[in-house]
Amino acid sequence: MKTRIISGLIMIPLILILVFRGIPLAIAAFVLSAIAVYELFKGFSNIKVTGNIFIAWGALILLYALHFLVPERHDYLTFWLVVSIIASFLGIFRADKHRAEDALVTILGIVYVEFFIYHIIMIDEGSYGIFVWVVAGTAIFTDTCAYFTGFFFGKHKLAPILSPKKTIEGALGGVVGSVLFSVIFALIAKVDIFPHMVLMGVVGSIFAQLGDLTASAFKRKIGIKDYGNLIPGHGGVLDRIDSIIFTAPAIYYYLQLVFQH
Amino acid sequence: MKTRIISGLIMIPLILILVFRGIPLAIAAFVLSAIAVYELFKGFSNIKVTGNIFIAWGALILLYALHFLVPERHDYLTFWLVVSIIASFLGIFRADKHRAEDALVTILGIVYVEFFIYHIIMIDEGSYGIFVWVVAGTAIFTDTCAYFTGFFFGKHKLAPILSPKKTIEGALGGVVGSVLFSVIFALIAKVDIFPHMVLMGVVGSIFAQLGDLTASAFKRKIGIKDYGNLIPGHGGVLDRIDSIIFTAPAIYYYLQLVFQH
Repeated sequence: MKTRIISGLIMIPLILILVFRGIPLAIAAFVLSAIAVYELFKGFSNIKVTGNIFIAWGALILLYALHFLVPERHDYLTFWLVVSIIASFLGIFRADKHRAEDALVTILGIVYVEFFIYHIIMIDEGSYGIFVWVVAGTAIFTDTCAYFTGFFFGKHKLAPILSPKKTIEGALGGVVGSVLFSVIFALIAKVDIFPHMVLMGVVGSIFAQLGDLTASAFKRKIGIKDYGNLIPGHGGVLDRIDSIIFTAPAIYYYLQLVFQH
Repeated sequence: MKTRIISGLIMIPLILILVFRGIPLAIAAFVLSAIAVYELFKGFSNIKVTGNIFIAWGALILLYALHFLVPERHDYLTFWLVVSIIASFLGIFRADKHRAEDALVTILGIVYVEFFIYHIIMIDEGSYGIFVWVVAGTAIFTDTCAYFTGFFFGKHKLAPILSPKKTIEGALGGVVGSVLFSVIFALIAKVDIFPHMVLMGVVGSIFAQLGDLTASAFKRKIGIKDYGNLIPGHGGVLDRIDSIIFTAPAIYYYLQLVFQH
């Protein structure tokens, strides 16, 4: 439990970045994506599949370059995806030693890490920019409340194959924590869309937990315990942000669908 | 060579569809995507990787449903990608027998086959809709002219590891054929943007050949000769449309970047 509390404290710099948003947030998203994609490829090397980190980093640089060069429209996103995916294919052209799966892991890094995280920036530049707090808040409160609820009340296993320690009680506690965060956020930020805040708390929490389970599924299937060891005992960056990777697009499209911002 | 000529004739129904465009074109793109993604997964089963065809087909249905429900904007494309990619992750949750690579092949089918091909529909509904002809034309003329030029003049190998029969002479012949098509198309369609048509012929041809090489690379690396055997002796649908899969986004973004249509 001590580990959990300390890893909670590690989130503080991230929260400070959310206060400033804009350029600091873009830099943070860029750097965390660069590290997380590296960790992902390192993890897959455990099953002898080799993502091309230079193509993935090149794609990341291109994404944020396009962001600052073409700030007023999102049409460049599908362009960027096509260019990055084709580059990933070219990465296995050179020699027979490059396997088909190598290109697929490069694509995974580009879409799952870089593209998903980028939705935070898309929220930030929209008219509901302050909702980047909801991306981080629903993820962190889900994670923390699920842990403590599970610790004290957990009885029924949630997903024994993927993540043996998770319980249904914990999952529900996570949803409650996320909704509480959303409502408190609405009060502090004076956002007058209360029913939507409750729903956004639920949606954020569900996707935070799916993000967590996805990272667990990949770790289990490629036979690693953690994606990295940046802070000893706390796993890598990807282990820390696996929930945010999913809440970012979830909150972005919730806002898009409901408010067409 | 007889094989080539006959397979050229098979393209005729596709050309008829290009005359009508609209709904017939959308149906053709949908059906060809459904078959091609099935063939892709069947190919990967050769290296014991199992894409989830139901998730891929579900994603395809969702894409064309969104197309007809939300026709006026393209923002739904990134939404669709996120939903489809997350669904692909969930596909490996159920049991230990599902491998990490299984999710990656499902994603490959969704982005490489379904998303790339969909760019034909995006061109069709734009103000330069007639350029769907250029997507098919540059691909077919590149393919045919590269084959004949290589057959008669080919000396220097282009990519011996991926596709031993291809020559540099053939590749250049493909570019010439593609440019000739583009220019003739411009004359017939009375499109008054001549320098762009030459450049589009070159770009289309380069991507047609990259598309061909990508399909060859995957086939070689997963150890199959053809993706299918729909028409005996002519391979599967995916073998026939591998060039168009790449010319579709190439021509779409060329038009976007140059004409902002």
